[in-house]
Amino acid sequence: MPEEEHRILIITGREFEDIELLYPYYRLREAGYSVVVAGPSQETLVGKHGYSVKPDTIFHDVIVDQYAGLVIPGGRAPERIRLDEDALRIVRGFFEAEKPVAVICHGPQLLISAGLVRGRRLTSWPGIKDDVIAAGGIWLDEPVVVDGLLVSSRMPSDIPYWMRSYLSILEGKA
Amino acid sequence: MPEEEHRILIITGREFEDIELLYPYYRLREAGYSVVVAGPSQETLVGKHGYSVKPDTIFHDVIVDQYAGLVIPGGRAPERIRLDEDALRIVRGFFEAEKPVAVICHGPQLLISAGLVRGRRLTSWPGIKDDVIAAGGIWLDEPVVVDGLLVSSRMPSDIPYWMRSYLSILEGKA
Repeated sequence: MPEEEHRILIITGREFEDIELLYPYYRLREAGYSVVVAGPSQETLVGKHGYSVKPDTIFHDVIVDQYAGLVIPGGRAPERIRLDEDALRIVRGFFEAEKPVAVICHGPQLLISAGLVRGRRLTSWPGIKDDVIAAGGIWLDEPVVVDGLLVSSRMPSDIPYWMRSYLSILEGKA
Repeated sequence: MPEEEHRILIITGREFEDIELLYPYYRLREAGYSVVVAGPSQETLVGKHGYSVKPDTIFHDVIVDQYAGLVIPGGRAPERIRLDEDALRIVRGFFEAEKPVAVICHGPQLLISAGLVRGRRLTSWPGIKDDVIAAGGIWLDEPVVVDGLLVSSRMPSDIPYWMRSYLSILEGKA
């Protein structure tokens, strides 16, 4: 199996929601994937709760072909990186290549800025529900919403549903 | 299958290491278990990084027979609860009943106080290595050490190894 089928990308920025990054980071490794964290720069990123993560790579250098899937944690990070053209290029690249994307909490802010929400069923942190709807999305109040290869959840307590669905889709594609 | 075969207990206290509690909490639920958190009192517990957890029950009320396994996260919590006789009764109960126990970081401080370390192979946060050895344990510097039904790890970065081994043992027992 080519190496890229076992490599997952996480994109984030400062003030990520710690558990929404750390859970998939460890969970995907537990399942045998290698996980690469990309940030806007090489600067170490500190989460809202103080866990720190040194990016393995920067958005500018990411080649979508090298990954099997994408994870976008929440927190304040998505708003910080949604104006970064390289971050948006990455997100669009995963959708165009039809690779599984997991998004939670404020993560859909990146999908909105990338123009990828229209006509899609998804969920998010309730505080950005109206932005998802204004961007043309169909917002559902459920622990996990699966629309094709997009897996979305609302908040940390949804994590068990979020990752169970995402892993199932990743394994279905592999 | 009796309900207790799908119920796991986590025991902890104030200043737990957040990811070492939250990861197994969500991971075991992802795998279909229900998870009960017990604390020394009903007081909401706040982790070192600020995540808070309201205990479902208190040590005094825990009946070991009602659970399939035990998880002891690290942080500063184990030192805070190791003098609590009910906490020690719980830990000894899981060993006597031969149910899988997962311990990480400072968690072995509870095993030392419960007199359960002598002759056992385990690991821990390196800072308490000498205490484990003084209590008669065989300390190994590995991401996960499995000795019978005891699964121990050193630190958060060992989590993928820790939970993969623990789930495999739980599923083998079920």
